[in-house]
Amino acid sequence: MADKLANPMRTTLLNDKIEWYPVSSPEWPGDVRLYKVEKMLFHGKSKYQELVVFQSAKHGKVAILDGQIQLTEKEEFAYQEMLAHLPLCSIPNPKKVLLVGGGDGGILREISRHLSVEQIDICEIDQMVIDVYKQFFPEIAVGYEDPRVKVYIDDGVAFMKAVPEGTYDVIILDAFESIGTIGLELANKEFLESVARALRPGGVMSTPADSFWLEDFTVEDTVAQCRPIFTGSVRYAWAAIPSYSSGTIGFVLCSTDGPAVDFQKPVNPLDTESNGVAKGPPKLYNPEIHAAAFCLPSFVKEVVGARS
Amino acid sequence: MADKLANPMRTTLLNDKIEWYPVSSPEWPGDVRLYKVEKMLFHGKSKYQELVVFQSAKHGKVAILDGQIQLTEKEEFAYQEMLAHLPLCSIPNPKKVLLVGGGDGGILREISRHLSVEQIDICEIDQMVIDVYKQFFPEIAVGYEDPRVKVYIDDGVAFMKAVPEGTYDVIILDAFESIGTIGLELANKEFLESVARALRPGGVMSTPADSFWLEDFTVEDTVAQCRPIFTGSVRYAWAAIPSYSSGTIGFVLCSTDGPAVDFQKPVNPLDTESNGVAKGPPKLYNPEIHAAAFCLPSFVKEVVGARS
Repeated sequence: MADKLANPMRTTLLNDKIEWYPVSSPEWPGDVRLYKVEKMLFHGKSKYQELVVFQSAKHGKVAILDGQIQLTEKEEFAYQEMLAHLPLCSIPNPKKVLLVGGGDGGILREISRHLSVEQIDICEIDQMVIDVYKQFFPEIAVGYEDPRVKVYIDDGVAFMKAVPEGTYDVIILDAFESIGTIGLELANKEFLESVARALRPGGVMSTPADSFWLEDFTVEDTVAQCRPIFTGSVRYAWAAIPSYSSGTIGFVLCSTDGPAVDFQKPVNPLDTESNGVAKGPPKLYNPEIHAAAFCLPSFVKEVVGARS
Repeated sequence: MADKLANPMRTTLLNDKIEWYPVSSPEWPGDVRLYKVEKMLFHGKSKYQELVVFQSAKHGKVAILDGQIQLTEKEEFAYQEMLAHLPLCSIPNPKKVLLVGGGDGGILREISRHLSVEQIDICEIDQMVIDVYKQFFPEIAVGYEDPRVKVYIDDGVAFMKAVPEGTYDVIILDAFESIGTIGLELANKEFLESVARALRPGGVMSTPADSFWLEDFTVEDTVAQCRPIFTGSVRYAWAAIPSYSSGTIGFVLCSTDGPAVDFQKPVNPLDTESNGVAKGPPKLYNPEIHAAAFCLPSFVKEVVGARS
């Protein structure tokens, strides 16, 4: 029976040249995605990670970090806009913002749209990431052109410990595939405590988190761990992003004790006339999509709580 | 450079046996997904189509219809629940429902949850689909066990033409991958006109439609074509479903002239104590997810209109 079934991948994969680049995820086992490659553009290793960039047939340039898809040029805006604007639009008048990781510059580009922001610090451990994005993804790395941006090449954990208490209005973590998969070891708890300490009262944090489609979806543990640390509110949200393994990614949004933050009701609309260094208005984000990101499937509500 | 890159698919695909089943979509070119196969279960051809069923490593049983993924056991509920409950929960007290296609029985299972419904007709062209689902997917084909269900093995276009005017409260089309890709030829217009005729005034129709991530997203044409035919309202909605090619699928919801239908505000809540022949309550659908399905990314609003 097996012989009768068509297998269009056979021929292409028998070639020595990589015509299809395979991307699999340990968190989403049982399927593998192959991207059609037009041209390999970069393959390098830093002290920290391995980065591959290729021109794909249909998704623009694609960046692969340690074998995992980092972004595709075609869809990167979805992740960058949601991770940045969910926290930034949830509080009035954010002024000081810290980004940990996010060396590609896309989150910087999105923060740049917010005119109230006076200071944008980024702590990225790997200079290679910055250099490669500046070379191959100028529309993403454009974020570095905002004069409010100050770059610190440093380890995020060490950097965070040194931040004076109450410094930032918003901290965006873009250093981890998801905080759900880091586990609940002490290091993570200590790191999250250092994030909470670095925020002003009523300040907000956003981080990517597990997609609710993952077999080992454990965001309830993350949410439970965040609650005693971020005593304002802790919420799970999600967005549809084709390039991630299940087509969906999660986010965890937290606020510290202080002026109440209702993440589902954005209070700080984006002025789409002023886009900072970004070219044109956001492609995905708007206030309805913001609110919808917190509407959860029933099987997710059951585990993370209707109002987590 | 290419040689240095790992290619985990190489070995498995060199085998004669299909260990990874490739699924590609002409609507989503440039990437191909491979599902890890544990056991091939069925491969057959009817007069109409080719159906493959295999046990996958991580997604339960998987059904492939003419090379396209039809459903995976793990995630099928998402599509079935949304395509059924978006229309059924948008009007009070639906009584007569027609399903065109949907031979797997999953939509029937979801319609079955609605106690107000007195008549559930299904028109499916291919007896093979029904038989195979009853054999391999009993939790989906359970929909046929509802005593209100009457099965017509017939061509949907011919069947629809013969339906007396104003017969149904709800018509669910599950016969096409998406109506966006059928194109705008006269046949489609005539078919949609026959659907509108078969609905009572203020009756509703749902159909799958293009994912907004597709390169050739043309739902604006479909929406524009539906407007003069369904003179109540025409709306585009979406849901995240990992097994579909972009991780997202669209829906078009239409109502005929008559009592106004506001699709974004469900008026007919599901009584989750009474699930008909379904085992347990819906896994994904709830009123918040219903409303969120109509919240569109900015680049989609631009083409289909904020209130389509």
